[in-house]
Amino acid sequence: MNLNFFKDFPELVLYGEMIGPDNLYISKDIYNVESVEFYIFDIREKNSGKPLKIYKKQKILEKYGFFHVRFFGEILLENVPREIEKIILELGEKEHEGVVIKDPEMVLSQLKYTSSQSNCSDLRHAFKFYNDTGRDYMLSRIVREGFQTVEWKENEEEFKKRCMWLGESILSPLRESIGGVKDGQRLYEEAKIRVRDLKTVKDFEDYLKRLGVDVIFEEPQVVEEEYLIKIKKINKSTNDKTQAILQGELW
Amino acid sequence: MNLNFFKDFPELVLYGEMIGPDNLYISKDIYNVESVEFYIFDIREKNSGKPLKIYKKQKILEKYGFFHVRFFGEILLENVPREIEKIILELGEKEHEGVVIKDPEMVLSQLKYTSSQSNCSDLRHAFKFYNDTGRDYMLSRIVREGFQTVEWKENEEEFKKRCMWLGESILSPLRESIGGVKDGQRLYEEAKIRVRDLKTVKDFEDYLKRLGVDVIFEEPQVVEEEYLIKIKKINKSTNDKTQAILQGELW
Repeated sequence: MNLNFFKDFPELVLYGEMIGPDNLYISKDIYNVESVEFYIFDIREKNSGKPLKIYKKQKILEKYGFFHVRFFGEILLENVPREIEKIILELGEKEHEGVVIKDPEMVLSQLKYTSSQSNCSDLRHAFKFYNDTGRDYMLSRIVREGFQTVEWKENEEEFKKRCMWLGESILSPLRESIGGVKDGQRLYEEAKIRVRDLKTVKDFEDYLKRLGVDVIFEEPQVVEEEYLIKIKKINKSTNDKTQAILQGELW
Repeated sequence: MNLNFFKDFPELVLYGEMIGPDNLYISKDIYNVESVEFYIFDIREKNSGKPLKIYKKQKILEKYGFFHVRFFGEILLENVPREIEKIILELGEKEHEGVVIKDPEMVLSQLKYTSSQSNCSDLRHAFKFYNDTGRDYMLSRIVREGFQTVEWKENEEEFKKRCMWLGESILSPLRESIGGVKDGQRLYEEAKIRVRDLKTVKDFEDYLKRLGVDVIFEEPQVVEEEYLIKIKKINKSTNDKTQAILQGELW
């Protein structure tokens, strides 16, 4: 990452996402990244928030050697539905999330379109911790499946397959979580962070505490001059709810 | 219905539900009722709300000839899980809703247990009007399916069947609603009421307006000295949401 960018363009701000197996917010292991890297998706003007046009953004990203999300190219408006369906089917097979469709001029608002595999993977995670995840988060992903089957004019065979995937993506994690709690287990998510300075761990722990997140930090392990720390995030609400229902309490 | 009850027991209150095809809140057509009848499930003391014990309640119901929900009898505590599973499987086949398990002394809180068919029927209705129905209503019915598969220790074949039912109960109505709006239809629920006096219709219309419900009342038809009025309830939120998404707006 060429930091001259910040000197050359003091009026611009990078919008991106930390991607890689060491980002505890992203469950999927997709880009060929060892720990985490900063992937840029937009460049915007300071204060106004006005985004650069796609063409200009791409030029800057290349010049400064920034990592950026995969660029599928410019597609003629009339070809978009067909081309996007093709791209999404391909991405879905690799369990990738989907695409963000952007106006080259960045005037029209952007549109995220996700693969069924990604929706179902979100749902598997959401229903594992069914009482911690937002209802709206679950519903929006379910409804996406409804729209996709209409948009793609699926036949009965394709539709039945989609029903089965959806049903399994919901019921499998529910069964696992309920069965787990019944057997006396505590439900948690595992994540890890890699830091150079142990103070960062302390800061992060404080930050999560302020957010009200219930976490257990394991002892740091030294990995290549860095510290790797495993974190268990206790999904208290789902644990408690499941326990309560199993003991006869009502929804 | 013997109205002497109210003279004989001025300190008691009947708790019940209007059941029959003419109750617009109950979609299922189960009891052998022509229009609506008042079915009693509890008798309680005025003010304190303290319920009568089951035995005493049953005696009063019989004496005064009240309609009451089906009574499956008293079941020994240790047999409850097995017996209820049997009853629920039977009720499910007939698309009936389920049971409410009550302590004969009415001290412990009661427990409603529903059939998978009833859960899925609720879900079919809920997802037809996915943006009008409460998120929590949907989630609780989905989670019930998760608990039931664990409670009944289902094998993989039974589990797959449940996944397929669940998936279809969610996706079929979604597909139908989204496809309908795409074809220019308006989504609505149909209901009907039967009244002796047309003033009741006016009162009911005012009541629904006060609740903020968007309804269209059709012209009254005369049926056996009564008026039958068909009502269309417009599910505005789902209509608008679906329209907006189809036109490119975001969730």
